[in-house]
Amino acid sequence: MSNERSIAIFGPGLLGGSLALAVRVVMPQCEIRIWGRREEAMTIIRERGLADFTSTDARLVAAGASLVVLATPVTVMESVSRLIIDRLAPDAVVTDVGSVKRSVVGLLEPLFASAGHSFVGSHPMAGSDKAGIEAARADLFKGAACIVTPTAQTSLVDVDRVKCFWEALGCRLLTMSPDEHDRKIARISHLPHAVAAAVVLAGLGKDPSAAHCSGNGFRDSTRVAGGDPDLWTGILLENRSEVVTALEDVVAQTKELLAIISRQDNEALRRFLAEAQKLRALVPPGA
Amino acid sequence: MSNERSIAIFGPGLLGGSLALAVRVVMPQCEIRIWGRREEAMTIIRERGLADFTSTDARLVAAGASLVVLATPVTVMESVSRLIIDRLAPDAVVTDVGSVKRSVVGLLEPLFASAGHSFVGSHPMAGSDKAGIEAARADLFKGAACIVTPTAQTSLVDVDRVKCFWEALGCRLLTMSPDEHDRKIARISHLPHAVAAAVVLAGLGKDPSAAHCSGNGFRDSTRVAGGDPDLWTGILLENRSEVVTALEDVVAQTKELLAIISRQDNEALRRFLAEAQKLRALVPPGA
Repeated sequence: MSNERSIAIFGPGLLGGSLALAVRVVMPQCEIRIWGRREEAMTIIRERGLADFTSTDARLVAAGASLVVLATPVTVMESVSRLIIDRLAPDAVVTDVGSVKRSVVGLLEPLFASAGHSFVGSHPMAGSDKAGIEAARADLFKGAACIVTPTAQTSLVDVDRVKCFWEALGCRLLTMSPDEHDRKIARISHLPHAVAAAVVLAGLGKDPSAAHCSGNGFRDSTRVAGGDPDLWTGILLENRSEVVTALEDVVAQTKELLAIISRQDNEALRRFLAEAQKLRALVPPGA
Repeated sequence: MSNERSIAIFGPGLLGGSLALAVRVVMPQCEIRIWGRREEAMTIIRERGLADFTSTDARLVAAGASLVVLATPVTVMESVSRLIIDRLAPDAVVTDVGSVKRSVVGLLEPLFASAGHSFVGSHPMAGSDKAGIEAARADLFKGAACIVTPTAQTSLVDVDRVKCFWEALGCRLLTMSPDEHDRKIARISHLPHAVAAAVVLAGLGKDPSAAHCSGNGFRDSTRVAGGDPDLWTGILLENRSEVVTALEDVVAQTKELLAIISRQDNEALRRFLAEAQKLRALVPPGA
């Protein structure tokens, strides 16, 4: 049960827009304030009635909110934070939805602490290859894992407020350090994104007409390669040290598989695929 | 519009079972005959009323059918074919659902020709990570691509009969040589299967607890790694020369990506991801 009085959402994309829709449903008493840079997105938000207050002036949107959620690309979070930091209500807590945590928490936790506010890093695992407010859905967060990444400095009361908020939206909560988050997410999210792009180029680069033969296997395996290149360039570079290690591992595994198939080693191939099948069974089903 | 009098399905797994369900719906006048090795599967088929005639004796099931569909693993097709070849009706045409075509067509076309029958290779792109008759669905083939692979020797009339049959089931037909099929399918189906296994091992091998952080990205990208290891060992080895070339390409692409991320080349990374996004957009949406 979350008792936030007023939520300010910065960045009205898929995640920010879905947040607004979800808050309307599960916390109908909570005021919704939205900031976006582009007037077009703000028009959609007003037309769909997603917010109680909207503005392209970040300082106006921040004023009075009890919970601030940064839902912009991670590369923009610092500049937005510097704009709003002296306009926050005394009890305001700040969180985000960014897919890297070490750099974001490392920067924003001390920044907000300098003004007497808590920043608690969050990462709801609820992205999509579709971007933008047009794809927003009230149930985007339902059943999704949400990773909260407090540090030794974070106030436990504020961590609980942020957790309560995500729980109210239907998320399955996980708590870990920003470092552990970046290590795990490099493997569970950034790795499949990067590899999907490589599979599309290897699969279709020489003969794009093969696309017409696609079954659900190729469709599902490469769905994430349809994601926004700008957004993913930022994410992969921001977490590059972990992503590089994970990609080195996938190259090693693929080379081993290649060697097994080349030497027609029936038994080793069956073991390789069976081990992957066993690990894959650990993944919880989707909502 | 398909006018088959009687269809004999060999192998009551996901594909064979779904075939029976679909034929009942779209060709209600057509007799359905099913052969399976295991009595348990045959019991399910009788209980669900999927067939007009069932037996574990392949010769009895083949008798009188106008269309024979081999839906066993590719490694078993030859032995089943040898069992039934002298029991086929004079007008019988034989096809299959195997995911490799060069070896299957190369073996079975001359075999059936020696007894005066046509073998026309087919590959409906309608697999799933779920296997077995329990997962069978009447609409499995609806909207799926189905690749038919005639050779210079195949009778055009018989190719048309096989095409009409798949069209009646709702498939989108593609026609190409067995060689072209194996080349394209290595990239569009066998490659993502092999890579999904490598991604699971690289993603979860060192830290299986990361599975709990999974979002839809990892879930979809690795779904096919949940497939049956025995089945996929057979498929990957049967098409190994094409699969090895495709895997070499994916290793090269992944290494390039690795180099780009290591040297923090923002512009090259954006181009790499944008090129993949553009090619991915060629894939027709699922049914």
